[in-house]
Amino acid sequence: MADQTSLSVEEAIETRHSIRRFTEDPIPKKEMSKILELVRLSPSAWNLQPWRLHVVIESTLKNKLEEAAYGQKQVGSAPAVFVVISDMEDVLANLPDTIHPSIPEARREEEVSNLASFFNGMSIEERGQWGLTQTNIAFGFLMMAVQGLGYSSVPMLGFDQQKVKELLDLPEHAKFAGILPVGKAANEGYPHHRFELEKIVTFH
Amino acid sequence: MADQTSLSVEEAIETRHSIRRFTEDPIPKKEMSKILELVRLSPSAWNLQPWRLHVVIESTLKNKLEEAAYGQKQVGSAPAVFVVISDMEDVLANLPDTIHPSIPEARREEEVSNLASFFNGMSIEERGQWGLTQTNIAFGFLMMAVQGLGYSSVPMLGFDQQKVKELLDLPEHAKFAGILPVGKAANEGYPHHRFELEKIVTFH
Repeated sequence: MADQTSLSVEEAIETRHSIRRFTEDPIPKKEMSKILELVRLSPSAWNLQPWRLHVVIESTLKNKLEEAAYGQKQVGSAPAVFVVISDMEDVLANLPDTIHPSIPEARREEEVSNLASFFNGMSIEERGQWGLTQTNIAFGFLMMAVQGLGYSSVPMLGFDQQKVKELLDLPEHAKFAGILPVGKAANEGYPHHRFELEKIVTFH
Repeated sequence: MADQTSLSVEEAIETRHSIRRFTEDPIPKKEMSKILELVRLSPSAWNLQPWRLHVVIESTLKNKLEEAAYGQKQVGSAPAVFVVISDMEDVLANLPDTIHPSIPEARREEEVSNLASFFNGMSIEERGQWGLTQTNIAFGFLMMAVQGLGYSSVPMLGFDQQKVKELLDLPEHAKFAGILPVGKAANEGYPHHRFELEKIVTFH
């Protein structure tokens, strides 16, 4: 896709800042598909892929989402708003679909039954939390895919979860990785502020 | 860094597969530093950066880690093994360090006290789970950084957490994002197996 911006991983991570002001440029269909195709390839334990993405483009609904996010303008003004949830109950209802085709037929049933008994030993809340950890890997991949293709974003956790569930007709058990308004940056955002490496890394 | 492999985000995500066999090539110091610098820039809610990385290179300890991972050979044979944990108690003990320098002095204390009262309203277990969701964003960034620089990895959750805590002298409250053996791939891994986009994406 030589006609698209394509940043290296290094450039994408180094230039990514939370952006809260976007231009009005929409995200072309081709690039939207590419972003989604990349998120789809995120890794997850046992390949369970608990992430489900709701992409809000329609203005009226975007404005309602902004209200549910306590009026934060980046929601209504972004050309596309990704709402990323984890749905472990949907995963559990479709376990055979997650098993890799290279696994021999004879072992597939066993795999499914091991997974089912592992997660059925947890409460819906506990396995919801578990699924959310895996969904957040995909949430990070989404930010990287967006950045790599020349767009910007801002991850948000400050919103009324119950209202967003109602607006998008999400199941009660859904867990939120976050809301991600996406578009072309209209400003540069703030410089990074992070702990020193010595604080977060130990060599053994 | 023109002498380093540098994949685009697109290439990195598309070519990333779990790799369980590595060559014996070590990871040069310069590239190791780059990987860690990139992970350090991961985003997190309120910029709390709960991730802590333990990089195991020493053979004897790596072999003990392999034992704790039920003998899975990719642990002992990878030139470097990243153990990624979330440590929210350390975050809470150092809240002022997370506040962005652009925040005016007068508001800094208020921010710290709001964050403290939010997390003190949770149990250690609950806020541990919360921190883990943010740490998994960094765990994804780590896989991307590794891949972008021409290395491969395999995310693992199958290990005896208690034993790993003892081996690395981790606090009891630590939550694991996972173990990530990293090195130059010695094989290609399996092709991706993922849900169709229609299953995971809804447009509004």
